[in-house]
Amino acid sequence: MRLPARVTIEEVGLRDGLQLIGSVVPVEVKLRLLRALYGAGIRAMEVTSFVSPKAVPQFSDAEAVARAALALPHLDVSALIPNLRGFERAREAGVRRYTVVIGATDRFNERNVRMTVTESLEQLDAVAAGVRAAPGADLAVGIAVAFGCPYTGRVPLGAVVRIVEHARALGVRAISLGDTIGVATPLQVATTIARLMEAHPDLCLVLHLHDTRGMGLANVLAGCEAGVTRFDSAVGGLGGCPFAPGATGNIATEDVNHMLQAMDIETGIDQQALLECGRLVRDVITAELASHSLRVHLGRGA
Amino acid sequence: MRLPARVTIEEVGLRDGLQLIGSVVPVEVKLRLLRALYGAGIRAMEVTSFVSPKAVPQFSDAEAVARAALALPHLDVSALIPNLRGFERAREAGVRRYTVVIGATDRFNERNVRMTVTESLEQLDAVAAGVRAAPGADLAVGIAVAFGCPYTGRVPLGAVVRIVEHARALGVRAISLGDTIGVATPLQVATTIARLMEAHPDLCLVLHLHDTRGMGLANVLAGCEAGVTRFDSAVGGLGGCPFAPGATGNIATEDVNHMLQAMDIETGIDQQALLECGRLVRDVITAELASHSLRVHLGRGA
Repeated sequence: MRLPARVTIEEVGLRDGLQLIGSVVPVEVKLRLLRALYGAGIRAMEVTSFVSPKAVPQFSDAEAVARAALALPHLDVSALIPNLRGFERAREAGVRRYTVVIGATDRFNERNVRMTVTESLEQLDAVAAGVRAAPGADLAVGIAVAFGCPYTGRVPLGAVVRIVEHARALGVRAISLGDTIGVATPLQVATTIARLMEAHPDLCLVLHLHDTRGMGLANVLAGCEAGVTRFDSAVGGLGGCPFAPGATGNIATEDVNHMLQAMDIETGIDQQALLECGRLVRDVITAELASHSLRVHLGRGA
Repeated sequence: MRLPARVTIEEVGLRDGLQLIGSVVPVEVKLRLLRALYGAGIRAMEVTSFVSPKAVPQFSDAEAVARAALALPHLDVSALIPNLRGFERAREAGVRRYTVVIGATDRFNERNVRMTVTESLEQLDAVAAGVRAAPGADLAVGIAVAFGCPYTGRVPLGAVVRIVEHARALGVRAISLGDTIGVATPLQVATTIARLMEAHPDLCLVLHLHDTRGMGLANVLAGCEAGVTRFDSAVGGLGGCPFAPGATGNIATEDVNHMLQAMDIETGIDQQALLECGRLVRDVITAELASHSLRVHLGRGA
């Protein structure tokens, strides 16, 4: 079994994890979790979304959270930006790494951001032009429903390739493949990664997985075997998808970190401290958590 | 990714799945579930345990369940036998495939069956002698805590090899490796399988996995890639381990079947009918189920 020596886990709990939670989480709670995750050794984090505060009140504190994150030494901070306005707000807050998310199918993208894929790609052009003019800025593209769509089923690789090619032409260095509704199989992950890496050897490919059907860690394994060294995950398995019936959260950072470290893959994250972050999430945000490792940890009466 | 064309799933819900449930499940309920699973296409099943009815009242109906299972055409029926007395009862009931379980560590085996590993191997000698004298009988050995023990941590491969060698010398054809407390990693599974297959090319290796830390399907994948074509699982993810704090059930048959079929691996099982078996378990046995696919199925209001 060929596995990487080191993997980077990007914590997305504060963004993807909180986006769909019923209530707005107070900024103090977010900052407490941010610092606890940093204390556990997390060094890459998507901390917020510079979406319209009217549309998503959860992220009306985007500037405050971003600034607090940027104050932590050696933390690689990223933020979601829906459009040029979001990019400008993120840049003003000091963020230098931005992610634009585009759904791989029209049906999903229309429900998610009210645009066709073509319209989203046009908007990406505008955002990329803005980013290019900003020194030190780094734009990534996240492809939602990259493997399967709740409306159209299995997503053909061509739909993903189209977005990748477009983004590459704009100078985008990192692409995150999102299994938004947790339907990707390890075989599909392996095939997709191999095809994309063959066409774009210098592309930074990230996997953003959900554990809806229990395949989350199997897909992490398939990704590792295919050469992926960067995974998104959320503490406690926070998160979900409003357009995916029965969908559960992101793969739990505790579960990913546990499996990788148990296979001697370096992540730089302290598992016990991470589990205590999970406990914090349970205590101050929500008890509805899908983390297997956290359940074991709490079940022990730890 | 090298995967097998066909995999056999052995359903163990009626045995391992019910062993630790608080209440005795009525025999009519067991037979209903047995027939539903058979109707979904399950053709290999561990249906009961011929343990002392005084020690485990859950299996005081072992004869009735075994006879009902044996009446189903082309169903490959097996039963757990703790000792020679259990073998004799199973044989009288018509069962021809028997499994003896031995823990890989003394600490676990002593708590489980009040014997050291050496004592269990001696008892295996006696059972094997009985089985050899019975025409058409097939003895398998299940190794519990084959990867990790709740008392002694990671189990060295030598402890597994010792039991395998002993069983092979007795003519045992199939060995099941049990990750009783759900701590095996895909790398450990791959390494263990490779070593055992190299030493015993004609051995039938079975993986018996639990999903305690979310690695259940990742380990199925690692097993498939290493050449394993037989897995134990329990409908609804039933089961657990009394000596493993926080341990959850067996990997859910629905989750295993879904992942395998989604990768075009043939199992012969109808996923929708299987999900309805999961619903039956929820309705008539217990609602505390760890099956991801069943949660999606029921969440859809199906």
